[in-house]
Amino acid sequence: MHSTAASTDPVRRAIAVFDSGVGGLTVLGALREAFPGTDFVYLGDTARVPYGTKSAGVVTRYALEAAWYLSQRPLAALVVACNTASAVAIPDLRRAHPDLPIFGVVEPGARAAVAASQRGGILVLGTEGTVASGAYPRAISALRQDAAVRVVACPLFVPLAEEGLVSGPIPELAASHYLDGVLDDSIDTVVLGCTHYPLLRDVIAARTGPHRRIVDSAAPLVEELRPRVDQTSPGQGDLTVLTTDHPTRFLRIGRRFLGSPVTEPTRIDLEALVAEERRRQGGSDAFLLGAAA
Amino acid sequence: MHSTAASTDPVRRAIAVFDSGVGGLTVLGALREAFPGTDFVYLGDTARVPYGTKSAGVVTRYALEAAWYLSQRPLAALVVACNTASAVAIPDLRRAHPDLPIFGVVEPGARAAVAASQRGGILVLGTEGTVASGAYPRAISALRQDAAVRVVACPLFVPLAEEGLVSGPIPELAASHYLDGVLDDSIDTVVLGCTHYPLLRDVIAARTGPHRRIVDSAAPLVEELRPRVDQTSPGQGDLTVLTTDHPTRFLRIGRRFLGSPVTEPTRIDLEALVAEERRRQGGSDAFLLGAAA
Repeated sequence: MHSTAASTDPVRRAIAVFDSGVGGLTVLGALREAFPGTDFVYLGDTARVPYGTKSAGVVTRYALEAAWYLSQRPLAALVVACNTASAVAIPDLRRAHPDLPIFGVVEPGARAAVAASQRGGILVLGTEGTVASGAYPRAISALRQDAAVRVVACPLFVPLAEEGLVSGPIPELAASHYLDGVLDDSIDTVVLGCTHYPLLRDVIAARTGPHRRIVDSAAPLVEELRPRVDQTSPGQGDLTVLTTDHPTRFLRIGRRFLGSPVTEPTRIDLEALVAEERRRQGGSDAFLLGAAA
Repeated sequence: MHSTAASTDPVRRAIAVFDSGVGGLTVLGALREAFPGTDFVYLGDTARVPYGTKSAGVVTRYALEAAWYLSQRPLAALVVACNTASAVAIPDLRRAHPDLPIFGVVEPGARAAVAASQRGGILVLGTEGTVASGAYPRAISALRQDAAVRVVACPLFVPLAEEGLVSGPIPELAASHYLDGVLDDSIDTVVLGCTHYPLLRDVIAARTGPHRRIVDSAAPLVEELRPRVDQTSPGQGDLTVLTTDHPTRFLRIGRRFLGSPVTEPTRIDLEALVAEERRRQGGSDAFLLGAAA
């Protein structure tokens, strides 16, 4: 179903950006700014958001369903903007879609951290699922063996960002609650390991202090994607936004995450589409794993 | 598939309690305490939690799927412990299962509020979905026409309760954030319109003050269920707990909500079970609406 895009490829191929909800719009915003001529398709799984509190197995299944659906379009690449899904589902996604370049956000975040850190003391802030996966310590240690990585789950940061409570005493106390016990002198770099957290950057920075660097995945992800974009037939900067729930809340909240008004989303019933395909395949889920591609 | 239980019914019928996740354990705890000889089946849809930020359509579909699954057992009643699902899905659930007594938590909460309120000034705290539904103002006004009902969404209360942050400055500030602008002299009663909020009762009470009553659905729900329990063959106080995601997080968090250790849950893959039934029904969803029962 997929073939890799080459410079002579006449097909207009979009970059698909997949996320559990609105958070990935922070990633989409950075990509759209870097690649204004590229077409993007954004899918937010708002009917099943959040992924950060769910098990690796469930998150992987949701990611496989999204990738199956998105891969029916001609794609230049699939970006898994959600840290939790990046942390647990990338190997299965790559197995299911061997011809589609798939980019997560954990490896770019790890590269940004290693590039920023002088002494190798790195604190990663993420969801419960990202923390439980151990993906950041693995990715950082693979790049710098002597790195000392700590990870902290910050569950309140997601609802604070979604509610727009990104300054003032409530987020300040939440940042203090999560950070005060773990910030010691060895840590010189802090990774925003969830797409929601860049909205709280100022509050987090006030707590971590001016002598520590704060990094996220956006800039290194842009550089990782640049060769793919250069090889792909140029688009027209089109943006298609899809959500799995009714888009009212997505539209209201999304603007803060994208940094600009959000294109009116089209709702897709992903569960029903998967069920229909499963029925066509005689009840088998193998198509999600790439067997029917 | 269902038949109402009578006092001569030889079948042991459980009361099913359905919730989006762990929150409904506060309701289950109250029911188990009131009816120690009754068997209960609890289903937490942890693979798709929370419902409070999702649309009425999606929440209704999830509730219909849960009710379809639960109704395959002999049941004395189905309790929809989730306020959001109670607010939007009860009519569809009753149409789909006309012979199964179905109890939501909005009407009991409304009755508790009207019984407690002297002047009819009632403030309902709930999820975004419950607030958007207008279910509480409708239910309260039906009982007391001159009631003046205000509803406020308190999105941070759910993650605060799940994280165990139920005292101290963060929940205090959150309570202040939601309540200070709406608590005027006319309000004498506050409804905890979400199963998570009873965990924050002390913090909320400190803000609402000693002259206002705080009510929730548990006590009136118990009274509403009592005739059903009396008609049903006694069980042995058995509790079966089902979750749609891996139960690790549910077990860890659930204890605080139930007030005692939680029975080890069995995981069910509700989406796959629904898909399998849909396949058996030739691709139709009519079974969820009761057409195949």
